Amino acid sequence: MNEESLKKLLADFKKGNKSEEDLLEALRDLPFEDIGFAKVDHHRELRTGFPEVIYGEGKSLEQILAIAEKIVKRGHNLLVTRIGVEIGSALAARFPEGEYGETARIFAIEAKPREKTGFVLVITAGTSDIPAAEEAAITASLFGCRVERIYDVGVAGVHRLLAYESLIQEADVIVVAAGMEGALASVVASLSRAPVVALPTSVGYGASFKGLSALLGMLNSCAAGVSVVNIDNGFGAGCVASLVCGKARR
Amino acid sequence: MNEESLKKLLADFKKGNKSEEDLLEALRDLPFEDIGFAKVDHHRELRTGFPEVIYGEGKSLEQILAIAEKIVKRGHNLLVTRIGVEIGSALAARFPEGEYGETARIFAIEAKPREKTGFVLVITAGTSDIPAAEEAAITASLFGCRVERIYDVGVAGVHRLLAYESLIQEADVIVVAAGMEGALASVVASLSRAPVVALPTSVGYGASFKGLSALLGMLNSCAAGVSVVNIDNGFGAGCVASLVCGKARR
Amino acid sequence: MNEESLKKLLADFKKGNKSEEDLLEALRDLPFEDIGFAKVDHHRELRTGFPEVIYGEGKSLEQILAIAEKIVKRGHNLLVTRIGVEIGSALAARFPEGEYGETARIFAIEAKPREKTGFVLVITAGTSDIPAAEEAAITASLFGCRVERIYDVGVAGVHRLLAYESLIQEADVIVVAAGMEGALASVVASLSRAPVVALPTSVGYGASFKGLSALLGMLNSCAAGVSVVNIDNGFGAGCVASLVCGKARR
Amino acid sequence: MNEESLKKLLADFKKGNKSEEDLLEALRDLPFEDIGFAKVDHHRELRTGFPEVIYGEGKSLEQILAIAEKIVKRGHNLLVTRIGVEIGSALAARFPEGEYGETARIFAIEAKPREKTGFVLVITAGTSDIPAAEEAAITASLFGCRVERIYDVGVAGVHRLLAYESLIQEADVIVVAAGMEGALASVVASLSRAPVVALPTSVGYGASFKGLSALLGMLNSCAAGVSVVNIDNGFGAGCVASLVCGKARR
Amino acid sequence: MNEESLKKLLADFKKGNKSEEDLLEALRDLPFEDIGFAKVDHHRELRTGFPEVIYGEGKSLEQILAIAEKIVKRGHNLLVTRIGVEIGSALAARFPEGEYGETARIFAIEAKPREKTGFVLVITAGTSDIPAAEEAAITASLFGCRVERIYDVGVAGVHRLLAYESLIQEADVIVVAAGMEGALASVVASLSRAPVVALPTSVGYGASFKGLSALLGMLNSCAAGVSVVNIDNGFGAGCVASLVCGKARR
Amino acid sequence: MNEESLKKLLADFKKGNKSEEDLLEALRDLPFEDIGFAKVDHHRELRTGFPEVIYGEGKSLEQILAIAEKIVKRGHNLLVTRIGVEIGSALAARFPEGEYGETARIFAIEAKPREKTGFVLVITAGTSDIPAAEEAAITASLFGCRVERIYDVGVAGVHRLLAYESLIQEADVIVVAAGMEGALASVVASLSRAPVVALPTSVGYGASFKGLSALLGMLNSCAAGVSVVNIDNGFGAGCVASLVCGKARR
Amino acid sequence: MNEESLKKLLADFKKGNKSEEDLLEALRDLPFEDIGFAKVDHHRELRTGFPEVIYGEGKSLEQILAIAEKIVKRGHNLLVTRIGVEIGSALAARFPEGEYGETARIFAIEAKPREKTGFVLVITAGTSDIPAAEEAAITASLFGCRVERIYDVGVAGVHRLLAYESLIQEADVIVVAAGMEGALASVVASLSRAPVVALPTSVGYGASFKGLSALLGMLNSCAAGVSVVNIDNGFGAGCVASLVCGKARR
Amino acid sequence: MNEESLKKLLADFKKGNKSEEDLLEALRDLPFEDIGFAKVDHHRELRTGFPEVIYGEGKSLEQILAIAEKIVKRGHNLLVTRIGVEIGSALAARFPEGEYGETARIFAIEAKPREKTGFVLVITAGTSDIPAAEEAAITASLFGCRVERIYDVGVAGVHRLLAYESLIQEADVIVVAAGMEGALASVVASLSRAPVVALPTSVGYGASFKGLSALLGMLNSCAAGVSVVNIDNGFGAGCVASLVCGKARR
Repeated sequence: MNEESLKKLLADFKKGNKSEEDLLEALRDLPFEDIGFAKVDHHRELRTGFPEVIYGEGKSLEQILAIAEKIVKRGHNLLVTRIGVEIGSALAARFPEGEYGETARIFAIEAKPREKTGFVLVITAGTSDIPAAEEAAITASLFGCRVERIYDVGVAGVHRLLAYESLIQEADVIVVAAGMEGALASVVASLSRAPVVALPTSVGYGASFKGLSALLGMLNSCAAGVSVVNIDNGFGAGCVASLVCGKARR
Repeated sequence: MNEESLKKLLADFKKGNKSEEDLLEALRDLPFEDIGFAKVDHHRELRTGFPEVIYGEGKSLEQILAIAEKIVKRGHNLLVTRIGVEIGSALAARFPEGEYGETARIFAIEAKPREKTGFVLVITAGTSDIPAAEEAAITASLFGCRVERIYDVGVAGVHRLLAYESLIQEADVIVVAAGMEGALASVVASLSRAPVVALPTSVGYGASFKGLSALLGMLNSCAAGVSVVNIDNGFGAGCVASLVCGKARR
Repeated sequence: MNEESLKKLLADFKKGNKSEEDLLEALRDLPFEDIGFAKVDHHRELRTGFPEVIYGEGKSLEQILAIAEKIVKRGHNLLVTRIGVEIGSALAARFPEGEYGETARIFAIEAKPREKTGFVLVITAGTSDIPAAEEAAITASLFGCRVERIYDVGVAGVHRLLAYESLIQEADVIVVAAGMEGALASVVASLSRAPVVALPTSVGYGASFKGLSALLGMLNSCAAGVSVVNIDNGFGAGCVASLVCGKARR
Repeated sequence: MNEESLKKLLADFKKGNKSEEDLLEALRDLPFEDIGFAKVDHHRELRTGFPEVIYGEGKSLEQILAIAEKIVKRGHNLLVTRIGVEIGSALAARFPEGEYGETARIFAIEAKPREKTGFVLVITAGTSDIPAAEEAAITASLFGCRVERIYDVGVAGVHRLLAYESLIQEADVIVVAAGMEGALASVVASLSRAPVVALPTSVGYGASFKGLSALLGMLNSCAAGVSVVNIDNGFGAGCVASLVCGKARR
Repeated sequence: MNEESLKKLLADFKKGNKSEEDLLEALRDLPFEDIGFAKVDHHRELRTGFPEVIYGEGKSLEQILAIAEKIVKRGHNLLVTRIGVEIGSALAARFPEGEYGETARIFAIEAKPREKTGFVLVITAGTSDIPAAEEAAITASLFGCRVERIYDVGVAGVHRLLAYESLIQEADVIVVAAGMEGALASVVASLSRAPVVALPTSVGYGASFKGLSALLGMLNSCAAGVSVVNIDNGFGAGCVASLVCGKARR
Repeated sequence: MNEESLKKLLADFKKGNKSEEDLLEALRDLPFEDIGFAKVDHHRELRTGFPEVIYGEGKSLEQILAIAEKIVKRGHNLLVTRIGVEIGSALAARFPEGEYGETARIFAIEAKPREKTGFVLVITAGTSDIPAAEEAAITASLFGCRVERIYDVGVAGVHRLLAYESLIQEADVIVVAAGMEGALASVVASLSRAPVVALPTSVGYGASFKGLSALLGMLNSCAAGVSVVNIDNGFGAGCVASLVCGKARR
Repeated sequence: MNEESLKKLLADFKKGNKSEEDLLEALRDLPFEDIGFAKVDHHRELRTGFPEVIYGEGKSLEQILAIAEKIVKRGHNLLVTRIGVEIGSALAARFPEGEYGETARIFAIEAKPREKTGFVLVITAGTSDIPAAEEAAITASLFGCRVERIYDVGVAGVHRLLAYESLIQEADVIVVAAGMEGALASVVASLSRAPVVALPTSVGYGASFKGLSALLGMLNSCAAGVSVVNIDNGFGAGCVASLVCGKARR
Repeated sequence: MNEESLKKLLADFKKGNKSEEDLLEALRDLPFEDIGFAKVDHHRELRTGFPEVIYGEGKSLEQILAIAEKIVKRGHNLLVTRIGVEIGSALAARFPEGEYGETARIFAIEAKPREKTGFVLVITAGTSDIPAAEEAAITASLFGCRVERIYDVGVAGVHRLLAYESLIQEADVIVVAAGMEGALASVVASLSRAPVVALPTSVGYGASFKGLSALLGMLNSCAAGVSVVNIDNGFGAGCVASLVCGKARR
């Protein structure tokens, strides 16, 4: 219920077309439905055009298809994350307008392509960090950002990174995906005035403790402007990046 | 050295006003001074107006004063973090134009006050989270952001938070400081479309493990748009927030 | 030795058929065999009607069937937890009076259905938390409690939860199952005067450390009235809830 | 705003005594003020008589006195936790009607003494666990429960505990405070049909890791009916216990 | 051998009272026997009759057979630990004089059966702890100890344990295998004057962290006389127990 | 109730002075009062002559003196552990028959000196491990064992240890105190057929994590015959050692 | 570009053979290509002869073959680590000049065999540590070092190690691979004046926490001269060893 | 010495060609020198000229002076680590030939100054890492290495580091001291062909966990040639560096 329909309701009541009882009943539901949390809904509505997201891990193809059908029917963007090639192919067969990214393990339909604004730069330390990075990149792109990628420029060969310095300085926000010691986030942040969203990955073995070392390294970054998301949470990094860009393109 | 001065140098050399030796000497310095890392310097220069920061922990009053003198002499903003009341008072006596915030444990001089743009909202779960929050708030303010505060609205009384929903929805970026279980970041993020910089604090005891529980809670936030800085790192949260705003106010 | 055989012993002694020495010897053994821990046994007997529980993990179908036969033969309720669909189906075939819950991974026979009293509300943050929640719900129900469920109302959309506020306030005890940051327990506790049994789940990835983040978050809840059980321990949560209800329905 | 005043508002509007604009303004505030979150408030009001709690750690005497004055002025119960003997004595001097418990580090005023109902049994493993236990006991008592204590009956001498078996079986809820390995909670739960609130303490050294071993031990209790609060969180245990009793005495 | 006896030896040799052969023999033993390592060898020899142990995990059947052949050929006892039923059966087929214990995952040949002395009591909390316990029991038995078992007497039903109190008091050393909270070790130690070798098992889930909770619980035992071996290290517990018994039967 | 009063009860019953009902009631209480746990008590009595132990940490001088008086009055041995020089001196002044060990932080009175039997060897890796080692040594000595010490023979100079090989092979049980990597326990165990009680100490810094590295190292010892007590738990190591010796000297 | 070619460039410019534009273009590339990072490149070039390394884990045969072809075509050494027997065999079939080590899980082609200099000694505690050790040994060998191996000389039988003392003292650098408690590194370091590269392995179970106990033990080594690489990082240990030898053979 | 030469020795002795004294001398050296440990002694002797080290932490001035007197009397170098300014000044007063470094917390006497060979470069990320770095630098210098320092060149301003690239490439071994995320070690290693000894420091707060994040970061370095010592173990890093140099200057 929006303000217009509320005004109509009141007018009906004043005119006697609506009993006190009925009006009270309607108003009683307001706080959560309309006036109270309609704000939330309105806010949600403003976000429309953003894909609705299905976290695919642990869901069967049937479950995913059922939810996807509803979203697509409404004409919304669709984003299904963390799905293997089998489910991805099935989705691609069912929704030929969408695209399955095997590396990112994402299936996405951009229902209403729009101009990409805000520049998200996604950087990885190694090739093994690419899946998480792609999850971030595709998410940000689907949310309306222009995305560029610089992959495999870890600090073991810091000169490779420096060659991209101008690109780094143009970005509105940078996602840095790195496993092992996660040092790349600090180095990138030292070269940029954009906020750096550090995306630790579980790449590594032994004392990397499945991403813990990268996570701690990024949290302790000596370079200002770094904030961190969960290990392998490419989707989360893409969300944060697109929210920052949302600011940037106002 | 910019391109103009480089061209002039070459012209001088061609004309014979500059010896090969002198030119080589100048070029040898190029990579770091001008062409290579001058970008970095330029980038740094663009940041001027931002305070230079002294991390006060473990430094003596003499050390801090010595560094501060140099910064102030250059007419820069000054930010000294993590200092007790004794050092803070000494700084306030020496630099009457500055201000010491006892709660934030920060001394700041805003040398060239400028219009505040970009709206940073700083929220805390409890009163004990205020010092970290203030460190963030003062940092962001000194970096040029408009800052508002909502303190003591933790999820133990979630209605207190909801009363501020409109403010939450206006912010360009929100810093959420919380210790214990750190749940506030998730709840705020669910009410806002601004990026949320989660600032875990060491508030708590026992199984809070000095902020670890809040840190983990925030990293695992089920609400999109949350990224996290180190425990009690108010300065870092303020930096990230101001970088996001920097984008917003272009 | 039960009370009858004890009475017989004493009668024999009185009649002179049993010497003082023999009686003393028999009595000396009593404490553990009969009189002593019969108190415990009696206490156990008072619990009759409660299902006897088989922890299915790591047990073969044969082992489970063997134990189940004995329990059912005695006319008791039966609860088999943590079993897959294969064993569940086999049990359902063997004991058609029982029911296998695939989600909860529980097989249960309520031998002597009785009126459900005490109101246990089971809430989950997401759909992935439902298995643990169902384990709690079925356990509490089999132990004689009335159970209602509110699923998928995590703090990422806190308004969804608030719509159920009156139900939350009616409950005698609330089980809150949540993974990731586990924040839901705090928010629910802030809305209720019933004790909240927080049930952390292993839902999540990366820095959730298989439920550790939810566990720590719940232990550090800033809302009073929350206590916590082991990760994924739905059975334990159901036990605590039913014990609390047992008090409530006295 | 209650239903009556809402009806009056609507009548005024119908009669034309209230403009559409004014009515809309009033309704807009409803969700938080009256219909929506008044429930929360009402719920809070119902709790009146319960002490309002000041967490004393890190607060100055001045701060505590200021808050305490307000609470006492309203005629409410007062509970100040985690305060040393200096602050405790100052409070006792200022509020002679209250009592300072040095062991529990609690100052409490029971403004409106009422009949204690519901039976909370507080048990400790050793003498060093008594401070946490007393915090729980005094909290539960102030919240209206009858409290009894059995101290220093750890499993290193399990017979000491068994001597209290009948008391254990009478309790409505049992708080078990133990450090080191925390085994006592399991043993008590095996002897009782009341819910056991396990309160791990930081008593111990070395591999007790400041209460972690007791915490883990209690979370992994092999006895059903045990739930756990944070390390040394006597107040939390007392809250849970009194909520359970609140159910019991309905 | 000290210098004096060495001088005497040399004098005897010079005088011809000692043959070169005898002297060489004595000297050959010097480095290892007296001053250094021959004692170790002698000590090893004294141990003959003890099984030589093959840690089976990660070894192929071929590798195990190859090593086993050599040991058996020498007429020694054989102990192969941590092997599955396939390898166990193959060993049993090859060495019909041996026995494969499927639960303990051990294959053992007692080449020279001897009288069992020293009484090792092996106790488990639950049935899932039996594999580790059996590994300990079979090890201790093969090393020459009399072994008795009390299984499934965990503290969730402490009376079950107390029924065996006399047996507990007769043992020379007690191995207590328990997972989850590991409380049984403390309770047993409180009933016995024999040293208790606590054997934490990985039984449990969630916050048991694969045996960590049991391990910490046992290390923090409030009962004197408890020492601990690695998680699931039944072989180690059996070794310690038999060494203690070795002392006992001198 | 002792045996006499029980006999009287039975006689009364036989004579008809006591009804069956009354007798049953009385017998029902037996297990815990008399017949049941007198076994435990008897067992405790058998231990008489062993010192009663006061854990001094966190106790005031007054508290310690009060408990000590009672123990000494009964003519028992006295052992007060973990006390500083101030309390130690006060105890020495009050009980001149006792002795305060400043290194071990122990005050001990051996009320009834008896022949020391069973040979406990206490070895340390470094000089910083001596306090924990002395706690073990004095405990074992007071419990009736002959104790010898080899200090500062860590594996950084393994030849120093080997010089004591014969002593190592004579011991009935060996306590090895070591911090840092705790490797000494493995090396000693490889040289001895006595059980080794590994006593990790908190000696070290950084990644020693206050004894955790030594603890883990000892738990993972590749040498058979090693069991472990808590970090810095010299008293516990001394208890285990004396229990093993108790076996040895039977 | 070296100084000479730079001088020529400037001369050409002065003479007018080179336009300002061209010169500027060349200079602009300087920082990364020549003056700045050409050093890095030069440094890399000096390393030629060293194998280029493909980390095989998670790469498909196709990916590995593609990269390997390029490396081999250039005539470089090739090192593929962490590959199973299937990929190893395929590589051996494709490149018959190379060799697959099944234990080390490495495929290597030494394109230009050269004299091995510098003596790397690789020692293991047990047979299970051999895979990591072989990875180190083959790496060091391919990088040009003479490598010798001493396997299965753990501290559980320290005399086995001492028999190799002279070899230990001849080495230029020693790699010590050990799991479980990792004590071998300390003992070896106490016998040698060469730097010891400690290589913790994930060998062990329970409280070894997949190599953590060995890692911590080695980091806390009480013997000077020990540094540590990641768990199971044989390649890293081989690199460090060969760099040390590189120094040695200058 | 083999059996043949031993037989010859004995024959010589018998014939009188060898005195008892000579034979004893030869035999006395046997156990330690040839077969076992005299090599160790000889090896130790070769190290003479190296300072003997006193770990000062926890030692009183008296204890340190006593040990120092003995070392100095023998004309040896002296190194006392981890001492405050009070003890340092007292040592400087007693031994005016020595020097106390307040930052490094080291007192050192170089008894026999010798030419420094081998080039150790010590680099720190920040100024707070200098104490650990100085401990390493002074240690390496006293052990005979030429040491240069580059301090405060952390990755937050990576260009500062690159300015020193030629120095980095000249070093024989590089010690990199860094706290927080410890990324500097990786970056330095990517610029150098010398082995890098990574020295994690406890600099940082919150999720640095007292050096754990730097330690893990360094262990997981993606750059080859990095090995790691314990947190804040400057002495250990200096030892490793000097051992590497020892190789270099042969």
